[in-house]
Amino acid sequence: MLLPALTDLTDQNEDWRVFVGTGFLVGVVCALVAVATRGERPQFTQKLGFLLVTTVWLAACLIGALPIYFSSVNVTFAGAIFESMSGLTTTGSTVISGLDSLPRGILLWRSLLQWLGGIGIIGMVLLILPSLQAGGLALFHMESSDKSDKVLPRVNQLTGGLIAAYIALTLLCSITYTSLGMSFFDATNHAMTTLATGGYSTHDASMGYFDSNPLLIASTVFMLLAALPFVVYVRAFLPRRFQLWRDPQIVVFVVICAVLSFAIAVTRRIINETPFGEALISSTFNLVSVITTTGYASEDYTLWSNAAIGIFFLASFIGGCAGSTAGGIKANRLVVLYLVVRASFRRLVRPHAVIRLKYGNDDISAQTIQTVTIFFFLFFGTLLMGTVLLTVFGLDLITAFSGTLTALSNVGPGFGQVIGPAGNFSTVPDPALWVLSAAMLLGRLELVTVLILFFPSVWVD
Amino acid sequence: MLLPALTDLTDQNEDWRVFVGTGFLVGVVCALVAVATRGERPQFTQKLGFLLVTTVWLAACLIGALPIYFSSVNVTFAGAIFESMSGLTTTGSTVISGLDSLPRGILLWRSLLQWLGGIGIIGMVLLILPSLQAGGLALFHMESSDKSDKVLPRVNQLTGGLIAAYIALTLLCSITYTSLGMSFFDATNHAMTTLATGGYSTHDASMGYFDSNPLLIASTVFMLLAALPFVVYVRAFLPRRFQLWRDPQIVVFVVICAVLSFAIAVTRRIINETPFGEALISSTFNLVSVITTTGYASEDYTLWSNAAIGIFFLASFIGGCAGSTAGGIKANRLVVLYLVVRASFRRLVRPHAVIRLKYGNDDISAQTIQTVTIFFFLFFGTLLMGTVLLTVFGLDLITAFSGTLTALSNVGPGFGQVIGPAGNFSTVPDPALWVLSAAMLLGRLELVTVLILFFPSVWVD
Repeated sequence: MLLPALTDLTDQNEDWRVFVGTGFLVGVVCALVAVATRGERPQFTQKLGFLLVTTVWLAACLIGALPIYFSSVNVTFAGAIFESMSGLTTTGSTVISGLDSLPRGILLWRSLLQWLGGIGIIGMVLLILPSLQAGGLALFHMESSDKSDKVLPRVNQLTGGLIAAYIALTLLCSITYTSLGMSFFDATNHAMTTLATGGYSTHDASMGYFDSNPLLIASTVFMLLAALPFVVYVRAFLPRRFQLWRDPQIVVFVVICAVLSFAIAVTRRIINETPFGEALISSTFNLVSVITTTGYASEDYTLWSNAAIGIFFLASFIGGCAGSTAGGIKANRLVVLYLVVRASFRRLVRPHAVIRLKYGNDDISAQTIQTVTIFFFLFFGTLLMGTVLLTVFGLDLITAFSGTLTALSNVGPGFGQVIGPAGNFSTVPDPALWVLSAAMLLGRLELVTVLILFFPSVWVD
Repeated sequence: MLLPALTDLTDQNEDWRVFVGTGFLVGVVCALVAVATRGERPQFTQKLGFLLVTTVWLAACLIGALPIYFSSVNVTFAGAIFESMSGLTTTGSTVISGLDSLPRGILLWRSLLQWLGGIGIIGMVLLILPSLQAGGLALFHMESSDKSDKVLPRVNQLTGGLIAAYIALTLLCSITYTSLGMSFFDATNHAMTTLATGGYSTHDASMGYFDSNPLLIASTVFMLLAALPFVVYVRAFLPRRFQLWRDPQIVVFVVICAVLSFAIAVTRRIINETPFGEALISSTFNLVSVITTTGYASEDYTLWSNAAIGIFFLASFIGGCAGSTAGGIKANRLVVLYLVVRASFRRLVRPHAVIRLKYGNDDISAQTIQTVTIFFFLFFGTLLMGTVLLTVFGLDLITAFSGTLTALSNVGPGFGQVIGPAGNFSTVPDPALWVLSAAMLLGRLELVTVLILFFPSVWVD
């Protein structure tokens, strides 16, 4: 909280007191908790793990919300929680309109939340979830399935490499943005929210504010980089075992991005008669922004055509690669599901054939298949339940459905008049904001981690 | 085709020539095919099975479409195919407006298509799909898993019982409708489309035309009866083995219907201040109509409130019980998925526990779990692909999404201005009608049966 405080202090904005005050408060509470729990070291169980992960994210969300709630920004408590959750889960939906005139401290705070949330999720998915067997990154889980003592040092090494890669890419992105005409402050903020695939901007018009095609292209590249599994960036520095990693999801993800971007550009050429080159750049930028679950927009793409809306809608489900900062169903799950369907079709036709499922070089275990199918079921189940809840709180069907979807996939903008890329969540009623905040957390923690806590039989011994 | 021809002849409508003519044509073609394939008796394989089932439905659809296309009704060929497919798959979406002034022959033809489609689907799901292991009714498959010689006579016995139950219930429904004030013609048509959970009506205003609460209640009861597994009606006449059948999906289905109907009635009491008794009757009727995938409407329920829309939207996914004429995801799949999720959660917390999955008295096999999860994946995959295709053909997102959903679930009405319960598909462009017809067939044949034909590796030996 020191950074935004300093920024506001430099700008002579009174909000610096808020950051220092809440920072002090959080410090004191943490110290008290540390003292209160001193000496106790409970045995680590699976149950405790799920509870701990969820609690840590909730606590972080509360801490993130305090400065927003107490600052000069006019939001309700539900709004502040929503904004903080949207930041930490790198969703990028906002209840705040008039970003351009906001104190710079709070803008930096929002970007920092996303940036920290981004590295937090990579670390969590790689390091904690596999041990809970609730892995989004079933891949890594398969990789380290021999639980020898030698894995741990390597994992620590990996963690250091990931953090270094994340910081290096953020710096590189920031420098690129600056060299393409952004101010230092804008470049820093956007670099942080690009690498986090978060999508918070310092302007209401998002990336459209800068009106620069080179900037859109640069941003597209960095969003794609942020949606790849971060392990690829540290591969060269790792022991040989990891270098053998060939990951089918990367190819699938890039092909999907290319095909959908091209398809949108073609529809715009035909329906809107936009020059193809122009159409391709902005189509690719906005599509990649949605599919990587970043959520920047260069213009209101829902005005292009119904066909474009349909493709953006599809992209909102897909998401990036596992092991990145992106959300959504994710490319590795789609690969596994496709392979399972293909194998089952083959088995129907040739009941006695022996069919082995391989993801890259690795066999796909029954455990992995179950994890993926359960995620899929929970994803659509939660999506429908969230939709019903939001309609009960008065939202129309398209806002309710696309709002739940965009929260669950951690994308950012939804569809329809209210929460489309040109709108924001400022008019959404408080109860609905709570539901959406919950959906963001569920989506970010790969659903199982949170939902299991609501399953009574888990708590009975 | 004799029945509608006679009806039109009695009414002195020229359309009788169409029925006789197409009937003659179909008869000749069938005779030619029979002659051409005489003597050949190819070995029955799984591949042939899938191809055969799909071809039979396509042929039936074409035969059903001919009288509609050549009659005095003004529809394109795509429209006629859509109408016939909607009938045979017991969906109930229509491209025809002005039903009230239509010749009675064509109205009867539409109802007959649904009625025959209804018994066709029960027969197919019970008798053919299990042998292709693509069962919607995984239940029955489990039941007859010992492939002894004694099963076949029992299956034939069962078939006879099912047809008898279907006819008996239709007659009972027709008599009930007549006694509650419908004309003989209306009662016959509505009884056929009620038991088929089809939803074709003889009036544009559907059941709303009769403006009678007793009729709504009677129709609700018969729709519910039609959405239960038909095996329950012949249980008493079957060998003891079948009598042991306790089917959890029935309880789940009835509870879901009750909870959702009650919820809608409550929202209408609160939001619209409708008297609760009044609200409960029409809420239950319309909800049961959607959830059993019938598709009647007593009024435009999308005007009630956003909350009501949300609940109807949810209901469009659920569907009835397996082994009935209803479509959708179906209650037995939901039960299996819930049990799988619960078991997997338990396994996460207690990795070494032995957990057996039981559906009623039967163990759930790995095969069943795979069949159900693959269906679920294909359902949502097809839903999204269909949505994108329809937006490409110019439909807005809500029409495209709810249109694909209503076709895939064989419900009937969608959401939004165009295809909502007060609208119809007459303004939907031809290419979109083809997509929707395909979606109806996919949904009706439990997806796998059709999609497997498009999988290249199935055809390579």
